[in-house]
Amino acid sequence: MRALVLEKVGQLSLREFPIEERLGPRDVRIDLKVVGICGSDLHYYTHGRIGPFVVEAPMILGHEAAGVVTEVGAEVAHLVVGDRVCMEPGIPDQTSRAARQGMYNVDPAVRFWATPPVHGILRPSCTHPADYCFKLPQDVSFAEGAMVEPLAVGVHAATKARIRPGDTALVLGAGPIGLLTAMAARAGGCARVWVADLDAAKLEIARGLGFDPIDVGQGTPAETILPATEGWGCDVVYEATGSPKAAAGVFAPLAPGGCVVMIGGQSEPVPYDAGAAMVREARVENIFRYAHVFPRCVAMIASGAIDVKPLITRTFAFEDSVEAFEVAASAPKGDVKMQIAF
Amino acid sequence: MRALVLEKVGQLSLREFPIEERLGPRDVRIDLKVVGICGSDLHYYTHGRIGPFVVEAPMILGHEAAGVVTEVGAEVAHLVVGDRVCMEPGIPDQTSRAARQGMYNVDPAVRFWATPPVHGILRPSCTHPADYCFKLPQDVSFAEGAMVEPLAVGVHAATKARIRPGDTALVLGAGPIGLLTAMAARAGGCARVWVADLDAAKLEIARGLGFDPIDVGQGTPAETILPATEGWGCDVVYEATGSPKAAAGVFAPLAPGGCVVMIGGQSEPVPYDAGAAMVREARVENIFRYAHVFPRCVAMIASGAIDVKPLITRTFAFEDSVEAFEVAASAPKGDVKMQIAF
Amino acid sequence: MRALVLEKVGQLSLREFPIEERLGPRDVRIDLKVVGICGSDLHYYTHGRIGPFVVEAPMILGHEAAGVVTEVGAEVAHLVVGDRVCMEPGIPDQTSRAARQGMYNVDPAVRFWATPPVHGILRPSCTHPADYCFKLPQDVSFAEGAMVEPLAVGVHAATKARIRPGDTALVLGAGPIGLLTAMAARAGGCARVWVADLDAAKLEIARGLGFDPIDVGQGTPAETILPATEGWGCDVVYEATGSPKAAAGVFAPLAPGGCVVMIGGQSEPVPYDAGAAMVREARVENIFRYAHVFPRCVAMIASGAIDVKPLITRTFAFEDSVEAFEVAASAPKGDVKMQIAF
Amino acid sequence: MRALVLEKVGQLSLREFPIEERLGPRDVRIDLKVVGICGSDLHYYTHGRIGPFVVEAPMILGHEAAGVVTEVGAEVAHLVVGDRVCMEPGIPDQTSRAARQGMYNVDPAVRFWATPPVHGILRPSCTHPADYCFKLPQDVSFAEGAMVEPLAVGVHAATKARIRPGDTALVLGAGPIGLLTAMAARAGGCARVWVADLDAAKLEIARGLGFDPIDVGQGTPAETILPATEGWGCDVVYEATGSPKAAAGVFAPLAPGGCVVMIGGQSEPVPYDAGAAMVREARVENIFRYAHVFPRCVAMIASGAIDVKPLITRTFAFEDSVEAFEVAASAPKGDVKMQIAF
Repeated sequence: MRALVLEKVGQLSLREFPIEERLGPRDVRIDLKVVGICGSDLHYYTHGRIGPFVVEAPMILGHEAAGVVTEVGAEVAHLVVGDRVCMEPGIPDQTSRAARQGMYNVDPAVRFWATPPVHGILRPSCTHPADYCFKLPQDVSFAEGAMVEPLAVGVHAATKARIRPGDTALVLGAGPIGLLTAMAARAGGCARVWVADLDAAKLEIARGLGFDPIDVGQGTPAETILPATEGWGCDVVYEATGSPKAAAGVFAPLAPGGCVVMIGGQSEPVPYDAGAAMVREARVENIFRYAHVFPRCVAMIASGAIDVKPLITRTFAFEDSVEAFEVAASAPKGDVKMQIAF
Repeated sequence: MRALVLEKVGQLSLREFPIEERLGPRDVRIDLKVVGICGSDLHYYTHGRIGPFVVEAPMILGHEAAGVVTEVGAEVAHLVVGDRVCMEPGIPDQTSRAARQGMYNVDPAVRFWATPPVHGILRPSCTHPADYCFKLPQDVSFAEGAMVEPLAVGVHAATKARIRPGDTALVLGAGPIGLLTAMAARAGGCARVWVADLDAAKLEIARGLGFDPIDVGQGTPAETILPATEGWGCDVVYEATGSPKAAAGVFAPLAPGGCVVMIGGQSEPVPYDAGAAMVREARVENIFRYAHVFPRCVAMIASGAIDVKPLITRTFAFEDSVEAFEVAASAPKGDVKMQIAF
Repeated sequence: MRALVLEKVGQLSLREFPIEERLGPRDVRIDLKVVGICGSDLHYYTHGRIGPFVVEAPMILGHEAAGVVTEVGAEVAHLVVGDRVCMEPGIPDQTSRAARQGMYNVDPAVRFWATPPVHGILRPSCTHPADYCFKLPQDVSFAEGAMVEPLAVGVHAATKARIRPGDTALVLGAGPIGLLTAMAARAGGCARVWVADLDAAKLEIARGLGFDPIDVGQGTPAETILPATEGWGCDVVYEATGSPKAAAGVFAPLAPGGCVVMIGGQSEPVPYDAGAAMVREARVENIFRYAHVFPRCVAMIASGAIDVKPLITRTFAFEDSVEAFEVAASAPKGDVKMQIAF
Repeated sequence: MRALVLEKVGQLSLREFPIEERLGPRDVRIDLKVVGICGSDLHYYTHGRIGPFVVEAPMILGHEAAGVVTEVGAEVAHLVVGDRVCMEPGIPDQTSRAARQGMYNVDPAVRFWATPPVHGILRPSCTHPADYCFKLPQDVSFAEGAMVEPLAVGVHAATKARIRPGDTALVLGAGPIGLLTAMAARAGGCARVWVADLDAAKLEIARGLGFDPIDVGQGTPAETILPATEGWGCDVVYEATGSPKAAAGVFAPLAPGGCVVMIGGQSEPVPYDAGAAMVREARVENIFRYAHVFPRCVAMIASGAIDVKPLITRTFAFEDSVEAFEVAASAPKGDVKMQIAF
């Protein structure tokens, strides 16, 4: 079938690619409808690797996806042909020790779309275990469905933070994950959410979404948040930049007994301000992707608690996938999430 | 000063009442602006007692209040004359074992407005410890401020439930506490909230607020919720009726690993379906008023996460307080919360 | 093979019984070495049913077991022939919604040994999924290994209680589950554990194990515990009797913010003292068997944190199984746990 | 009165020191009986400062203490003259925001013995708020009572770790705090506790106390723990060295979903292995002293769950206090805790 193939670093082709997938008894076959472009897709395109995962052979990209069920395996009970679904891209070994304890995301055996050597889904169809496909209500579009994957990171972060209603939060980073995390924090009970970044265009988007922007070029988040909270600090800080410098400052704006959630991947050890963490008795949660949150994300989009539509700033046809990646790689101001529609 | 006095069961007067309050160094003096009528005020009026608390001498009613600071004690740092505030009606002994552990609401020594023998605040002014007065932002009205007290019950319930973003919830009871609990559950992260009652008018109000009504005259909540959740059940059940019959059914609609929050006061032991609780490994949280949530409620009203205004269905002048109670005691259809304005 | 068969209510035979078990790729075959007699085995013997589970055909009894691995399936990695193991008697559907979330014990599809229509293991050998077989260190005997199953209930209860080091606890009921729960509570951090019962012989055993006995024929637990805790109460109450009367009194001796764990199965709704629960803001955890605790139990037996040996008060040969059940059914004073050895 | 005075860096005198303490209505007066020498006392002696706290005037040392009540304030209810007590050295402002929420230890206004400019208690008597004095049962000696303060750090760490019964733990550092943390971890439910250090003498003491020693000169803790846990790792890692190098390695031996407790004070930011934390979804708890645990420590010493006596390796008379500090500052091999008796 035709697929968007990362041939090697910096080289993409939309071409015929031999891929054959058997439909297992617990699988469904899906026609893809919308696939989002993620920062990790771009990173493989521009760098050829993320940490230990190296692209050593042509690989199909894409893992943020929604589509329609076209065939169901013999043992699948909860889906039928025609169901509109979004899909969780990582498939764990359900019998692993981690998965049995409910933490399937930290099972080292997880196979994840578009993470070498596993192919992604920028192609017309795929098969997938039905357990990791989630039905979309009629009023949730495929474009919204393809946002569930990045939103799941934010919702997992909000879950781990154990927000109490009326908490205040700071999100470091106004990229797609930062903004989705801010949305999840608000939907999860935060009464006030600050979003900090260096980029004025991103901060303007954050402001438009109802968050309080902090321009870290003008001062530290603590310089804004401490005066605004009578010196107490905010209850939750989400680190969503992956920048060591940002990570160094997570405790300064944090309230006593507060929680820091480390979301952004860091390639090197970061400077951890142990003294500042100590005097606040901070709790730090480190998260890895997500677990058990896709249906929750769908429900929150359906209820209106979270509106992801403003973040979808540009859509390309599948035939224009290569161009889509080139545009995305140029990181145009004012764009948040780009998607590819079939 | 003039005050609304419960002389004895069934007899109210608006009359001059001798009450003298010294302003301690950590107190403020407050001119009352709005006071809500609570079910407990009505119960003292109609029955003269609630459990062990018996009205044995004339007592001023009222405990849901907002007002303006007119004088501040020498050691008060966070309030100034002119501040608009709402007030927490129960004052614990801060040195009690429970209070020192952060659970001041379960300190048996709490003195609570309009709970015999402590006077309430249906009178033009009062003094109160500044630690239990919370500033209202300019965009939160006194009427909203006087809703913070009942809302605090719902927010405390939502906090104890430890809602995870995207949870589903059922609230048993569509009275003021039930509706405020439903609002708190939604603001606290629930994607879908059912509200169950027998009263069609109350259910209509719940529907208008965006909740899914369940008429328990037509069938049990489980009969609605199980089919809507693929047989799984809802994550949280709030019991806000105080009815033993409702309490008997809290587990049937509950999901495995779910949480029941018991809010409604019960005068007798209730039939607890231990078998149904067991096979779900239900967690049951029993709550008593609230602790540490007033500023959180104010923040959620200010942010728009919770809109209490639709629940304020009727307002009387202080001079008409007796009439207000008579109307409230008649439980008119379509009313939720009545307030008295000074 | 020869097996102890419950033919119908009140009638046991040790006889040849046709049972054929295929060894799946993830299974092991086990020679049984020690099997304990559980209250549920006795109840099926004397009553023929437990709640909805009715003995409608001859069924092999027994589910508390330890043995030796004699054959391993092709995909089994963590066990080899000759390994000494104890076995978890309930096998869930690992792909069920509950199991995937880590709560496999509340999966309704669990197949549990000696729960109709599933046969138990009072027979020389059986097959079992390797994932539910746990290796015993050399210094843990088969007899101790066969105690892991009832101990698991106590350890699961202690886990759910979320004991904080130095807590105080009360266990209602001094039967095997009550005593094992008391041991788990102590090993899990409780500094002091009271055990309440009506039976003087059981209380004497509790005292000998280092617990503080309370004779409920002489007064309520609260009458002992409140004076001993300066009126505060104990932090955890475990209900391990299954008696409605005991369940009615769980809150009276409980501290503010304390936790009640409901362990004992109840056939009817129990009177729940909602008022007493409320003023303490009690948390109630309802548990069903256990999940993920077998290896923890083995580790605590191996470390000496828990010593189950004093509870094994009588051992019968497999050939004397029928007699063993008759003796056990007579509930002799001074016995706690009886076992059958192969 | 006579007191051990730190005149300035490196200079101690046992001399008459003018100190006058009024007995407030909620205070007690205490004759000191045993005072332990803490690393912080030594650090002030050898360096004159700890972080922002600088010794700028002669200061009495000592804060680990037990004694006898000799006078009680008018409002003190729970203590009488003659009571044997241990004392919590830090006194918060009970009305602070942190204290009211139950986290009095993170109140910045805490006044702590022997932290400049507050005097310690190496002197014959002192006054102290009764709320922070805890009665010792007759079978707990003054020497044990003076161990409660450092033990409280370990018990607080164990509490924050939220140990589940049967967990495994690693303690980095075999000094007094490391060993007391190991004891608290075991008493709090850990089935196996490794203790890692560079010092063979300290490791020998750890082994004698029943812990599994790891000589970090011979290899990393992960090299021991991963093979011992089938590659899974241990559930809790306590960092009790204050060494940045140790802090850098806290995640390598940690199990998925495990918890790291940062106990040791760090003067500089430490290298935090965010990638290793992420793939395990580690939770990190940062602790500062302790809160609400003194009575729990006393109860665990009294019950025998924790035996601190083997750690008290040398005792000096008060008259020999200066020598005691000189010996302690020389860090003799084989010593753990030195105390001064009156």
